Amino acid sequence: MCKRPAMKGKTVRILILGGGGFIGSKLAAELAERGTLRGGAIKHLGLADVGKAATPKASFGVSSHALDIADRNAVDTLIAKGWDVIFHLAAVVSGQAEADFISGLRTNFFGTLNLFESTRAAANKPVIIYSSSVASYGGEVPQPIEDWTNTNPQTSYGSQKVIGELLLNDYSRRGFIDGRGVRLPTVVVRPGKPNAAASSFFSSIIREPLQGEPAMCPVDPAATKGWLSSPRAVIANLLRTAELKAEDLGQNRCFNLPGITVTVADMIDSLERKGGQAALDLVDYEIDKTVEQIVAGWAVEFNPKKALALGMQADTDFDSIVQQFIDDELGGTPSV
Amino acid sequence: MCKRPAMKGKTVRILILGGGGFIGSKLAAELAERGTLRGGAIKHLGLADVGKAATPKASFGVSSHALDIADRNAVDTLIAKGWDVIFHLAAVVSGQAEADFISGLRTNFFGTLNLFESTRAAANKPVIIYSSSVASYGGEVPQPIEDWTNTNPQTSYGSQKVIGELLLNDYSRRGFIDGRGVRLPTVVVRPGKPNAAASSFFSSIIREPLQGEPAMCPVDPAATKGWLSSPRAVIANLLRTAELKAEDLGQNRCFNLPGITVTVADMIDSLERKGGQAALDLVDYEIDKTVEQIVAGWAVEFNPKKALALGMQADTDFDSIVQQFIDDELGGTPSV
Repeated sequence: MCKRPAMKGKTVRILILGGGGFIGSKLAAELAERGTLRGGAIKHLGLADVGKAATPKASFGVSSHALDIADRNAVDTLIAKGWDVIFHLAAVVSGQAEADFISGLRTNFFGTLNLFESTRAAANKPVIIYSSSVASYGGEVPQPIEDWTNTNPQTSYGSQKVIGELLLNDYSRRGFIDGRGVRLPTVVVRPGKPNAAASSFFSSIIREPLQGEPAMCPVDPAATKGWLSSPRAVIANLLRTAELKAEDLGQNRCFNLPGITVTVADMIDSLERKGGQAALDLVDYEIDKTVEQIVAGWAVEFNPKKALALGMQADTDFDSIVQQFIDDELGGTPSV
Repeated sequence: MCKRPAMKGKTVRILILGGGGFIGSKLAAELAERGTLRGGAIKHLGLADVGKAATPKASFGVSSHALDIADRNAVDTLIAKGWDVIFHLAAVVSGQAEADFISGLRTNFFGTLNLFESTRAAANKPVIIYSSSVASYGGEVPQPIEDWTNTNPQTSYGSQKVIGELLLNDYSRRGFIDGRGVRLPTVVVRPGKPNAAASSFFSSIIREPLQGEPAMCPVDPAATKGWLSSPRAVIANLLRTAELKAEDLGQNRCFNLPGITVTVADMIDSLERKGGQAALDLVDYEIDKTVEQIVAGWAVEFNPKKALALGMQADTDFDSIVQQFIDDELGGTPSV
C-alpha cells in the first residue's frame, strides 16, 4: 500500500457510493483500519447505498445513508455535506442491466450523471474514484487489450459504464471534479449468494463447493476464460488510485486494472487443489446460452501498461485467490 | 451512389434533424433530386432545426419543423409523426460546446438521448444515421487511427459525440433502433460565414480569399494538419450509410468515414493554384492558442478500413475540394 504520512492537521471526508455492496463494505473496513487517505487523517466516512449499509468500527465517525442515486435531489443533498474523496461503486450489475434496460439506465447512466452534475455544482472539487469494468470491451477489437484499444461494449451495463468514463474524463478536464476511473477485472471469489451479474458463476463454482454446496457451471470450462482479480487486490488498487496525483493520469483518466487470465478449467483445477475431490464433485455443468454469450463478449487478454506504471498490482495466481477466499471468508478452512 | 431500384409501392418518410444546417440542407437537396432511399420512393421529407429550415423543391412533400432537441416533449411530438429514416445531424459545434458547457450538454448529450429514448418508445424502428466526428479521437493513442483505436476525446463536443455513439450501439443492439454512426472528417470548404467550430478556419482560409476577402489563419500552417472531406463526399457517404444493411455493420455500428490528410500549408498551396497570388495575399497569420490547442487534440492520420469495405469514398486531393467549392458555391469562378 502506498500510504503517505498524514499531514499535520489535514483531514479527509470520504464517501462510498455503493458502500453496502461487496467491494464497498470491504473498502470501508480497510479505510477504518488504515485511518488515512491522501495525506490526511480520515475525519468521516459516509456509506451510501439503496438500503442502509452496515458501518465498520472506526476511530472516526461513520455514517450510513439510504440513497436512490437516480434521484438527483437526493444526490444533491448528500453531496452538499461536503466530501474530499468519493468512491463511486454504485451500479446495477451486468445481468440485471441486460434483463431490465430501464433499471440500468436509471442507476448506471443517470446515477453517474447525477453524481458528476451534483459535484459540478458543489463548492469543492472532490477526488472521485469510479469503478468501470472489463465489460467496457468487446466486439471486433484485437487482443490483448492495450490502453488505447477502443472500449466497444456489447452489453447495456458496459455501455453505461463507458458513458460514465467519458463524463468523468470531460468533467475532470474541465476542472469540475478530479476523477479517476478503473476498469475492474471480474472480482472473485465473492462471498454470499449468486447475484444477477453474468459473471456470478466465476465465484459460485469456487464458493459453493468449498462450503459443501453444489454449484452449476453455465459455460464450457476449457473454452471460457476470465480476466480476474481478488477482492484484496481490487481494494488495494482502488486505494492506490485514490492516492495518485492528477497530473500522473495523462489524457485519459480511466485505465485497466491488472488481473490474471484464467480458464474456467484452470479455476476448477485450483478448486480441486484447495478443496479436494469432494469439492470437485459438487460442480455440475449445464450451458446457459445467455450467460455464455455475455461472457464471450468480454475481453480476457490485457496489457495493462498504464496501470502497472501507476503502481497497480495483480494477484500472483488463481490458487492464491482461492486461498484468500478460504482465509477471509471461511476462517481458514473449507467446509467440504 | 449506391441507389437501389425503388421497390414497387414501398415509400419512405425521412427526417433530418439539423435540416437547416450546412450538411442538412445539402442532404435535403440531394434527397429531393434522387427521390428514393432504401429501395423506396421518398414520400415525405421533414427538416427540423432550431429555426424553420428552408425546404428544397421536390416531387414529394417537404415540411419544416422548429425544434429544440433538448425538449423531450417536442422530440416526442415530432417522432410520433412516424419516420422510416432519420438523419441526426443536429449539434452544438466544438468551439461553442467548449465555451459553453451547458449548451453542449443540452443539445449534444440530452438532445441525442431524447431522440433515442423517443424512438425507443415509438411503434416503429427507424434507421438512424448519426453524425459523429473526428473529435472523438485524441490523447495518448497511436496514429494512424484504426477502427479499433479508442475514442478518447479531448473536448466536451467530442465526449458528447462518443456518448451518442455508445447509446446508438446499445439501442441498436437491443433492437430499439437501427442506428449507424459515422465519424465525419472536418468538412471543407463550407460556404457562408465562420462559425464557432474550432475547425472553422479550415474553410475560412479558402472561402474568404476566393471571394476577395481577407482571412486569418490561427495556426502554424506547416505544423497543423487536418483530416478532411468535401461536402459532396460527406453527403454521398451519409446516403451510402443509410443504404447499408444492418447485418453488414458488425459489432460496432460507428465507423470513421474516409478522408484525406492535408497540412494547412498544402491547403494554402491549393488556394494559390486555384486563386492565384491575389488570393494568397489575402491570408494573414495570427496564432490563436485556444483554437490551436483544440485542433492539435484531434487525430489526423486514419486507416478507415471498415468504411472502405462498406463502400465509403474519399476525395482524391485538396485541389479538387477547392474546385468543388468554386463550382458549387461561386458559380465556377473565384471572385478575387
